[in-house]
Amino acid sequence: MRVVVLSGGVGGARFTRGLLAHLGADAPGSRAPAHEVTVVANTGDDLWLHGVRVCPDLDTLLYTLGGVVHEEQGWGRREESTRVSTDLAAYGVGWDWFTLGDLDLSTHLARTQWLREGVPLQGVTARLAARWDLAGRGVRLLPMADEPVETHVEVDGDEGPRLLHFEEWWVRHRAALRPRRFVQVGVEDAVPAPGVLEALAAADVVLLPPSNPVVSVGTVLGVPGLRDALVATAAPVVGVSPVVGGAPVRGMADACLAAIGVETTAAAVARHYGRRSLGGVLDAWLVDGRDRPDAAALRAEGWPVAVADTLMVDVPAAARVAAVALALAPLALAGG
Amino acid sequence: MRVVVLSGGVGGARFTRGLLAHLGADAPGSRAPAHEVTVVANTGDDLWLHGVRVCPDLDTLLYTLGGVVHEEQGWGRREESTRVSTDLAAYGVGWDWFTLGDLDLSTHLARTQWLREGVPLQGVTARLAARWDLAGRGVRLLPMADEPVETHVEVDGDEGPRLLHFEEWWVRHRAALRPRRFVQVGVEDAVPAPGVLEALAAADVVLLPPSNPVVSVGTVLGVPGLRDALVATAAPVVGVSPVVGGAPVRGMADACLAAIGVETTAAAVARHYGRRSLGGVLDAWLVDGRDRPDAAALRAEGWPVAVADTLMVDVPAAARVAAVALALAPLALAGG
Repeated sequence: MRVVVLSGGVGGARFTRGLLAHLGADAPGSRAPAHEVTVVANTGDDLWLHGVRVCPDLDTLLYTLGGVVHEEQGWGRREESTRVSTDLAAYGVGWDWFTLGDLDLSTHLARTQWLREGVPLQGVTARLAARWDLAGRGVRLLPMADEPVETHVEVDGDEGPRLLHFEEWWVRHRAALRPRRFVQVGVEDAVPAPGVLEALAAADVVLLPPSNPVVSVGTVLGVPGLRDALVATAAPVVGVSPVVGGAPVRGMADACLAAIGVETTAAAVARHYGRRSLGGVLDAWLVDGRDRPDAAALRAEGWPVAVADTLMVDVPAAARVAAVALALAPLALAGG
Repeated sequence: MRVVVLSGGVGGARFTRGLLAHLGADAPGSRAPAHEVTVVANTGDDLWLHGVRVCPDLDTLLYTLGGVVHEEQGWGRREESTRVSTDLAAYGVGWDWFTLGDLDLSTHLARTQWLREGVPLQGVTARLAARWDLAGRGVRLLPMADEPVETHVEVDGDEGPRLLHFEEWWVRHRAALRPRRFVQVGVEDAVPAPGVLEALAAADVVLLPPSNPVVSVGTVLGVPGLRDALVATAAPVVGVSPVVGGAPVRGMADACLAAIGVETTAAAVARHYGRRSLGGVLDAWLVDGRDRPDAAALRAEGWPVAVADTLMVDVPAAARVAAVALALAPLALAGG
């Protein structure tokens, strides 16, 4: 089965790890993975820090799928240290609110060296993924685009609106500054990275994991041509609600949703994505058991909807969420 | 007293530290340093490594003068670790022969960030020096030029001559590949960094420490205009022989000297620099007690020469070497 996942960071990474566990369990003992999972990652959070290129979502995917993520934290490497960044602070450089672990820094340095040598981000990502044998685990990790696209947040400043890099808004200000809008700096020059459109065209199913619908999946869909390819694919497109019980499962997605005028409910997010048959990008939606009223409302509107426990507290739980999402695919194709 | 030192790495750094100790001892209890020492550092060994800018000689000077150098090693930070570079090796990136310590990396990252922001190398160096309070210690550290100049070494390859970066030749190959010549890549576009020519013009004395005369001091003198400024200064120019007992004190300077057809003797290096009155750059020369015959031969040629124990085994020893070099200055001015 060929599966494409459009992913942000922690939520998408945990979902994809569950997906791989589920698919792998289907084909025990096979020498080559019987499935082919392509993850198209948001790169809108990428930033230059101390002269090195940091790609938060790609790194989280890399570490989570590679089995070396800091489990409790959800991002970064396990057994991490901060010797370099502690010393950097003594030079008065950079941002004291951004954690830069020593092991994580190694990834950024390798990436930066290759980028400087002229390797595109997609090739760089493939080299990083080779160390963690992502191919052997049946998954291919692609950036949404090779070109830099950086999400900025317009907020109210003392002297009128000002733009912050998304990471500054998200990590430093904990999304507490009310966002007026999100701007994808550089997106007009971006094209889907090599392999992205082909993967969407050849997919048996496309999954939208419970990533942030605005600044993760929304950013991926903002790359010119990518949304069109999603709309055009013959594969069913199934999404998992990132809103559970009227609140984001993780992070501060509610602040992002509010900025674009979308309520923080499982139903509102589904309507924001929209049904493909009505000009949107989704065919079916998986909501949490805490949101049965949302499921009922969506069903009344004709949506194919499944209800399940969607909290990915561990890998088996994430595998079950992925299994339900995959099970929705035939229903989605049938048109609900 | 205004002193200018044209320096390479370890030898120049230890000499300058001794010079500061000597000058400081002359003016105990003064609130501001009574002296003004400007070090013009070779940047020909600089390189990009993992996307960060490494300046070996500037760093050695920074750490030695700042009091944080790894004393036994002569370069790098004390209490260093290699967590990042060990992890980088697992990505198969870069050069396994180049040590990149975690604390050292912090310096490179700070430098790279500022360079990327458009700060010239001289300004970057001043910012790095501020952390270690070099100004408070009465010393100003300048790169020879803001523009990148990289020393490459032409050696014989299987398919004819090939160029290596100096650091690759020096550190990886331990200078074992016979050099045909040294090439200063980029030197034609370099100009002395702001402050260098002014310091030479205003100097009371200029010192050439026992640095490599070919790839350290020689590289500094290769910056267009710098040699002319040295020739033109009213200050005496006193050098300390890097050759003791017919061998380089440290490093593999003999390989460099051989490549340019200079014998590894204290007298031959002096003649290579040449006397200013005869078109060279030096006025006087300090040789080690093991090289009395060299001293005698140079004196017979009219050189002002002093003989002393020049091995800088500790700071007091380096201070004595600097004191003797300074004492040579009036003799040099008198024309020998």
